[in-house]
Amino acid sequence: MNKKIGIVGLGLIGASIALSLKGKVDEILAVDRDEAVIKIAMERKIIDKGSTKPEEILGKVDLVIFALYPSDILNYIVEHKNIWHKGQILMDVAGLKGELVKTVQSLLPDVEFIGTHPMAGREVSGIKGAREELFLGSNFIITPTDKNSVEGLNFVREMALLLGVKNIFEMTPEEHDALIAYTSHMPHLLALALIDNYTQGSEKIIGRSFLDATRVANINERLWSELFLMNKGALSEEIDKIIGKLLNFKEKINKDDRIGLEEKMKGIKALKERIDK
Amino acid sequence: MNKKIGIVGLGLIGASIALSLKGKVDEILAVDRDEAVIKIAMERKIIDKGSTKPEEILGKVDLVIFALYPSDILNYIVEHKNIWHKGQILMDVAGLKGELVKTVQSLLPDVEFIGTHPMAGREVSGIKGAREELFLGSNFIITPTDKNSVEGLNFVREMALLLGVKNIFEMTPEEHDALIAYTSHMPHLLALALIDNYTQGSEKIIGRSFLDATRVANINERLWSELFLMNKGALSEEIDKIIGKLLNFKEKINKDDRIGLEEKMKGIKALKERIDK
Repeated sequence: MNKKIGIVGLGLIGASIALSLKGKVDEILAVDRDEAVIKIAMERKIIDKGSTKPEEILGKVDLVIFALYPSDILNYIVEHKNIWHKGQILMDVAGLKGELVKTVQSLLPDVEFIGTHPMAGREVSGIKGAREELFLGSNFIITPTDKNSVEGLNFVREMALLLGVKNIFEMTPEEHDALIAYTSHMPHLLALALIDNYTQGSEKIIGRSFLDATRVANINERLWSELFLMNKGALSEEIDKIIGKLLNFKEKINKDDRIGLEEKMKGIKALKERIDK
Repeated sequence: MNKKIGIVGLGLIGASIALSLKGKVDEILAVDRDEAVIKIAMERKIIDKGSTKPEEILGKVDLVIFALYPSDILNYIVEHKNIWHKGQILMDVAGLKGELVKTVQSLLPDVEFIGTHPMAGREVSGIKGAREELFLGSNFIITPTDKNSVEGLNFVREMALLLGVKNIFEMTPEEHDALIAYTSHMPHLLALALIDNYTQGSEKIIGRSFLDATRVANINERLWSELFLMNKGALSEEIDKIIGKLLNFKEKINKDDRIGLEEKMKGIKALKERIDK
């Protein structure tokens, strides 16, 4: 791709994007507030050029990717609004889209901002966790609005394919946030709740179901507190819904309703098979 | 090992045990009520000899392994009590131990019965799912009581090592059942509840956390209904406990308690790291 890419924030996601795009684009430039991180990125040849000063670098790139904590992105974009100009695409990779996409697009109508969510992560944060293959086989969500151009969206789609993602799905920012409470926030919250219930001696009796269900409890507490709080409404609803399901199971169990349990499990198994297809 | 092993039930676990022990013991004999299953096992050379008639086979073996549905084991042992004799070890592999171990040991004081729980499984049931490597690296639980002999327990330990298990842990049958509600029944129940909450369109936005958390929702409904119902008390308690944890998170989220959330997540992450060691 004959483009220059600028990345803001060389954490797990930003540095993994740099590694994945390396050699596939004209130039990769990066900004991080931490000089030491820039130094590591240069030494490992993760990026072509880096700086702690955005104005030195970001004016010259075709695509700026904001890979910061969700709560920092809006401030960052507004604070450096003199850098952005027509013809550039701005894109973020935060796990929540609704408020951010709406606000940036209304505050900065003259530049194009595209919301995305690459659905990949690891239990190791920061540049040390970065992996070239992080996005291989994953889902990549784009949340276009009527403020986006066909060219801008095509550019972002092309970039996502260079990352090696398996599927690119598009939906509204609002739809994204409602669904993500179910598919991502709940599994993380359940993993936390399971570990929070830790019982002395239980590590002797752990099998794969427990390990899989609690893998993500090794969590980035700043990121996930932000995601939970920024998606409060949808997540609260999901919590109530899962509690309802658990109480329904508990009732069947306490009533010795073996037929009811088997029927329920059969239905869930069929649904699971359909989802997995 | 210079021993003859008899397996009752060539389902996922029974047939995987046969495959794992193949060539490492003198002879593997098996009983299954389904003639077709015996035929498959003979053709694939999973067993040395098989029959649908337990009296033809099981009197001659040193160790009888009952790999039936939990609710069938007690009846089976009692129904065929004329086959068992002193010098033989009887062993089961069911996922619940308390009632079964106590009842068999009191009803049949003249034979030695040892409760075990090999912590391994797959989402494919029956002989078609059997794998030689099913137990590799897994935990194997033995629940000895004062009715068991040193020789009997050593025999079972030796057999477990032949299966390739990583750890052998010992605990009382009651301790096993209390802990298993937490480490195994809850992850399975949460996987079911998550899929039960399925929201239209959400398959577009699934990441690894959801896939891992719901893997076991592809469930054997008969087995898991039995396990849930037989461990009703402990499981109900765990359901109440996890609901309490979820409500605590919900409260913090709705109060915008970012510091409280981050502190809680930090504590959980530290606990998770300790458990994983």
